[in-house]
Amino acid sequence: MEEVIRMRVLSSELSAHAGERVTMAGWLHAKRELGSVTFVVLRDRAGMAQVVVEPPFELSAETVVEVEGVVVAAEQAPGGVELHEPSFRVLAEPAEPPPLELRRPELKESLPVLLDHAPLAWRHPRERAKLEVLAASVAGFRRTLDGLGFTEICTPKIVASATESGANVFRLDYFGRPAFLAQSPQFYKQTMVGVFERVYETGKVWRAEPHETGRHLAEYTSLDAELGFIGDHFDVMAVVRDAVAGMVESVRERAPQAADLPEVPPEIPWLHFSETGVDDVDLAPADERRLCEQHGEWVFVTGFPAAKRPFYTHPEPGRPEYTNSFDLLFRGIEIVTGGQRLHRYEDYVSALGGETAPYEGYLQAFKYGMPPHGGFALGLERWAGRLVGAKNIRETTLFPRDRSRLTP
Amino acid sequence: MEEVIRMRVLSSELSAHAGERVTMAGWLHAKRELGSVTFVVLRDRAGMAQVVVEPPFELSAETVVEVEGVVVAAEQAPGGVELHEPSFRVLAEPAEPPPLELRRPELKESLPVLLDHAPLAWRHPRERAKLEVLAASVAGFRRTLDGLGFTEICTPKIVASATESGANVFRLDYFGRPAFLAQSPQFYKQTMVGVFERVYETGKVWRAEPHETGRHLAEYTSLDAELGFIGDHFDVMAVVRDAVAGMVESVRERAPQAADLPEVPPEIPWLHFSETGVDDVDLAPADERRLCEQHGEWVFVTGFPAAKRPFYTHPEPGRPEYTNSFDLLFRGIEIVTGGQRLHRYEDYVSALGGETAPYEGYLQAFKYGMPPHGGFALGLERWAGRLVGAKNIRETTLFPRDRSRLTP
Repeated sequence: MEEVIRMRVLSSELSAHAGERVTMAGWLHAKRELGSVTFVVLRDRAGMAQVVVEPPFELSAETVVEVEGVVVAAEQAPGGVELHEPSFRVLAEPAEPPPLELRRPELKESLPVLLDHAPLAWRHPRERAKLEVLAASVAGFRRTLDGLGFTEICTPKIVASATESGANVFRLDYFGRPAFLAQSPQFYKQTMVGVFERVYETGKVWRAEPHETGRHLAEYTSLDAELGFIGDHFDVMAVVRDAVAGMVESVRERAPQAADLPEVPPEIPWLHFSETGVDDVDLAPADERRLCEQHGEWVFVTGFPAAKRPFYTHPEPGRPEYTNSFDLLFRGIEIVTGGQRLHRYEDYVSALGGETAPYEGYLQAFKYGMPPHGGFALGLERWAGRLVGAKNIRETTLFPRDRSRLTP
Repeated sequence: MEEVIRMRVLSSELSAHAGERVTMAGWLHAKRELGSVTFVVLRDRAGMAQVVVEPPFELSAETVVEVEGVVVAAEQAPGGVELHEPSFRVLAEPAEPPPLELRRPELKESLPVLLDHAPLAWRHPRERAKLEVLAASVAGFRRTLDGLGFTEICTPKIVASATESGANVFRLDYFGRPAFLAQSPQFYKQTMVGVFERVYETGKVWRAEPHETGRHLAEYTSLDAELGFIGDHFDVMAVVRDAVAGMVESVRERAPQAADLPEVPPEIPWLHFSETGVDDVDLAPADERRLCEQHGEWVFVTGFPAAKRPFYTHPEPGRPEYTNSFDLLFRGIEIVTGGQRLHRYEDYVSALGGETAPYEGYLQAFKYGMPPHGGFALGLERWAGRLVGAKNIRETTLFPRDRSRLTP
């Protein structure tokens, strides 16, 4: 498709048009008045361009314009060129002055203020770049798994029973019956191992988190994968390693300026839960920070105690108080949870204590033959938060949802 | 990553290993006893392989096995090779005989029976291929829009107000407050035009459809796009054309056997609603069928009456009883809806009759400068249904949801 404004030139393409008369379009991002001349910065989806205007210049910030002018080389302009002899056509004027000053190098407002004004705040180049990290990460995840023979699936989000437990689940009126929002695609991705062996899904999941923390949300994007014919959870961890490496590579290609990108070692170091020195059945946030200080920015913890893992988790052979499960810690926080699952029908019946009725659909998969399998889930917004150095997961979430926030 | 069963060979790779001893893995799909010899068909994620076994062979359908044997050229075998001298290792046995005979060329059961047994039914090669059409279509959509400078977004699905209207919306208990499941990402994708100019999203949307028809579901996958700096809806239609062409191309590359693939003309023909001969404010299913019979398998209908389009729809200049909107009909059914949107804040205030309070977040985008823009949404399952010749949208939906169906 052609650019819809005929012959529109993007800011990133401007330097290739030196000496030509071109049409650009975008938002008035900033202006700087220097006596006899005014420098106007135009923002478009590709970046910024400088326009040299004779005063007076009355258009205000965030006015949407089309501007025609001559491209002139100018060493001090961004990209080495600027637009001279401009004529502006206003496409839309703001109804009132924006409450955030997008022209500043960084927005200085507090997080709650930025979240209240998110439709505007995301326009800031630094904020926008965080969303590019999200998009590039998902693209890298899909590309890596496509290359490993995985098939993408779209599983139901309205479900008849809570996935992991009855707690923290959103309840919904489904044509007069109760139903729930899926806390994960867990049951369905396992089921689909019976069809495709290797599947992934990128989609929203929901947790009715009763507490507000900087690392939890009521709605987030989960990157899920599941694969059959594994030996144990170490085969899943090898896929996790390739997935995060592919995500880092994709961010490097598509949004390098926003992120502090790590090296991903060919094999990520790991230690067993029993070697962590943790005197409990799960890691606390302080443990996660300490383990990364001790072992580097990437570390797998394997063999979590069975007490804290869901019923479908495969026990550790010979030590059933532990499981064939893992978390991946990255820069002091858990970003991936995974493991090997039970695959025999009778093991599910036993793990559920015979209470199979709510799981009838799910259990069909195991009733009719399932290979040894396992999988993992990565929280996209938390991952991106680590890459951009966010203190709060809301900084890398497009319109976050939590106990107190349902808009914008 | 290496295949997790070391040296596992997939059915699609078998012919490259003639004369070698290899290990395969998969499900026992079928067996055929011919006196002194039994032919066993092994199904894996890549296809089928034939294994020649000396009777008796006692393993039953859907047993999961690893099998080692020698690859021998055999003209009549699928792929021109078969496995001889096999030794089987059982990885999992079905707990009971499957209620569907997957070995048949087609499943003969009625749709409700297949849906009740979906975890098993999707294993059938013909059924599975439909899901490959879905996956390939989404991949083609993303690839096309990535190439046109669009950015992927993940917008909230729990929302404070119904998108299009108060009807047909699922209501949910959000920490003690009412909230809704998004009927579309409409408000958010428009908002994000202010950030990225061009955005897309592939995700679930929900409609509490009171009727059960073969073309509606309570939950489906919507492929959404929105772009700024357009002239009018014809610029959006040009993107729609490229998107469907890219989707067809992707299916041709990745899942050609399952679909009857159309040619996509460089420009899809269109006619205005006033030229359709329809004496109402919207098209009925019979009109959609008739228009495709008259104009070909692809046809745009533009200029729908304002009475049936949502409040954010841009009126047709000079004829405000019509709108700058369109539907794309494909093989007798509407698969895409789109149009140009209002972009000036005062036009929204007026379209909402001053009742702006429930839309405060959304309206921020327009308050602070938005370019002329428009977009579209394509229903993935309905699209795939047209490609594979499905009579009912449930045939191309992974675990459908409707008034009477909440499992599996």
